[in-house]
Amino acid sequence: MKRKERLSESAYIQGVLSGDRVVLSRAITLVESTLPADQELAEAVVSGILSHTGNSIRIGITGVPGVGKSTFIETFGKIVVDKGLKLAVLAIDPSSQKTGGSILGDKTRMETLAADKRAYIRPSPTGSTLGGVSARTREAMLLCEAAGFDVIFIETVGVGQSEIAVRGMVDFFLLLMLAGAGDELQGIKKGIIEICDALVINKADGDNLPMAKRAQREYANALHLFPIRESGWLPKVKICSAVEKTGLVEIWEMISEYRDLTKANGFYDANRAEQRGNWMHEHIGYLLKNQFYQDSLIQEKLKKNLPAVKSGALSAIAIAKELVELFMEGKAKK
Amino acid sequence: MKRKERLSESAYIQGVLSGDRVVLSRAITLVESTLPADQELAEAVVSGILSHTGNSIRIGITGVPGVGKSTFIETFGKIVVDKGLKLAVLAIDPSSQKTGGSILGDKTRMETLAADKRAYIRPSPTGSTLGGVSARTREAMLLCEAAGFDVIFIETVGVGQSEIAVRGMVDFFLLLMLAGAGDELQGIKKGIIEICDALVINKADGDNLPMAKRAQREYANALHLFPIRESGWLPKVKICSAVEKTGLVEIWEMISEYRDLTKANGFYDANRAEQRGNWMHEHIGYLLKNQFYQDSLIQEKLKKNLPAVKSGALSAIAIAKELVELFMEGKAKK
Repeated sequence: MKRKERLSESAYIQGVLSGDRVVLSRAITLVESTLPADQELAEAVVSGILSHTGNSIRIGITGVPGVGKSTFIETFGKIVVDKGLKLAVLAIDPSSQKTGGSILGDKTRMETLAADKRAYIRPSPTGSTLGGVSARTREAMLLCEAAGFDVIFIETVGVGQSEIAVRGMVDFFLLLMLAGAGDELQGIKKGIIEICDALVINKADGDNLPMAKRAQREYANALHLFPIRESGWLPKVKICSAVEKTGLVEIWEMISEYRDLTKANGFYDANRAEQRGNWMHEHIGYLLKNQFYQDSLIQEKLKKNLPAVKSGALSAIAIAKELVELFMEGKAKK
Repeated sequence: MKRKERLSESAYIQGVLSGDRVVLSRAITLVESTLPADQELAEAVVSGILSHTGNSIRIGITGVPGVGKSTFIETFGKIVVDKGLKLAVLAIDPSSQKTGGSILGDKTRMETLAADKRAYIRPSPTGSTLGGVSARTREAMLLCEAAGFDVIFIETVGVGQSEIAVRGMVDFFLLLMLAGAGDELQGIKKGIIEICDALVINKADGDNLPMAKRAQREYANALHLFPIRESGWLPKVKICSAVEKTGLVEIWEMISEYRDLTKANGFYDANRAEQRGNWMHEHIGYLLKNQFYQDSLIQEKLKKNLPAVKSGALSAIAIAKELVELFMEGKAKK
């Protein structure tokens, strides 16, 4: 694949700020690049647009495959854009790490929304570590905000890691579910429900409707057993049908209500402040490791010692310690 | 709580190697300590016993709350010790991070097994980051191996993170489930099933039995759709009843079969070698961050800049970069 020429730092920044989608896409591609030169440029671009970010509401949407996430995002996204709001949809897909292909990297999943000028859909980056993917998703989110999007959906599917990463970068976290589950789903609740602001039971249509309503009552009762959130918000349980387009307006109203409540009580801003601090710490960890592994002396020693660490002849923690000490001394000598 | 006196490095090592459970427990407490002096001693102890490790089979056991994990471990553990094997049970419980208390930190959950001299149950460490917990679980596992345990169960409950951490330190990974799930459970499969070696449907008794058998067939069919594992092992689906004590011997036979297959084709050792390498890399990351955050100049600058990073006035990534550069220069000046 032939690589496109990079733009200048100011061309990226001006293009993004003017809402140019071609430049926005190229800027996101830049932040997704693993080339050191691109990373430096990407960092400058992100820092350059940072003062223009923060004006969207960031909504995380999760749910296991089969729950109807794509259809939900299409129809719910339509509600959002019909309100005159500009919508960007980003995705984190850790499953691509293992399978090598992204199940979300396909715009054709959301054909109607993709064709809508008021929406921007960005397929997920593939083939990298979750840490990297989530860091780049955060930067893509900021670029979309700088480009003037009012609402950002961050979609995720996974077994937990990606949900926690997304929770760390959004304002509101929505879990999409299906009704008709027994005890086994009660179990899922503990982990995920603790981090979500709303449970939405999808496919509440036709014969499923009574079951969905029953599940809604059960979950609503169960949610009362959880300790009150720092946000002051009691997580809600909603039902909807993405296919019949019912219940979707109510979901948007709920999110607006959440925003009003948490902006008034200060949680909205406090949460974002906390997220920015964590972002810095994550980036510190990334940079430290990056510098370590790019050190030529370390690379040489690693190559020499790794076989004995793998065979168990040398202690993994002892070698780790030795290499880190060597790295620090190497810096001290320079 | 009054702290016990620490033993000498050689007293820990000799005590563990002689199978002294009191010393083993104290050594595990030592590796769980966050005090720098303890960590140094712990590292020496772990390095000292390392050549005596690797002789157990390490089995990860996961499943959502309500699936009957404690009862399963009790009755399945009984099968293991009745074969004349010494069993250690360790737990990773990330939920304690949020709730502040460990739901697994209670020996009384497994009363029969806890009273059995052939078994050793170690409650999970609490109140720390997942990375820290999993690192210490790995070291606790090695200590148990050095103390002569033949089989180690590492139990986990969580929303994904801990499962992936455990997968990274065991030979065999078992997912406990319940029958009676519809489409919604099909979804869970993708993420977790990709990393597990067996699905065990628990509570396959009484009225549940036909449903369990049906679920077994369905999952077995579904598993054929997944790509063949690097291990050469096709994940199996088993049914059991921990209460009626049925199907448990078959599970042990399956694990033995897995071990025979993967020892013969080389995967067993290759996987462990890979795990040792990853352990070293994880420890490198930990040490680098540790050194960084203990640097007094960094602490001062962090304190000064964090408010502006949180408010968004300063760029999180720019400050991260600046601090890491400062840290490296500081080392260079010394």
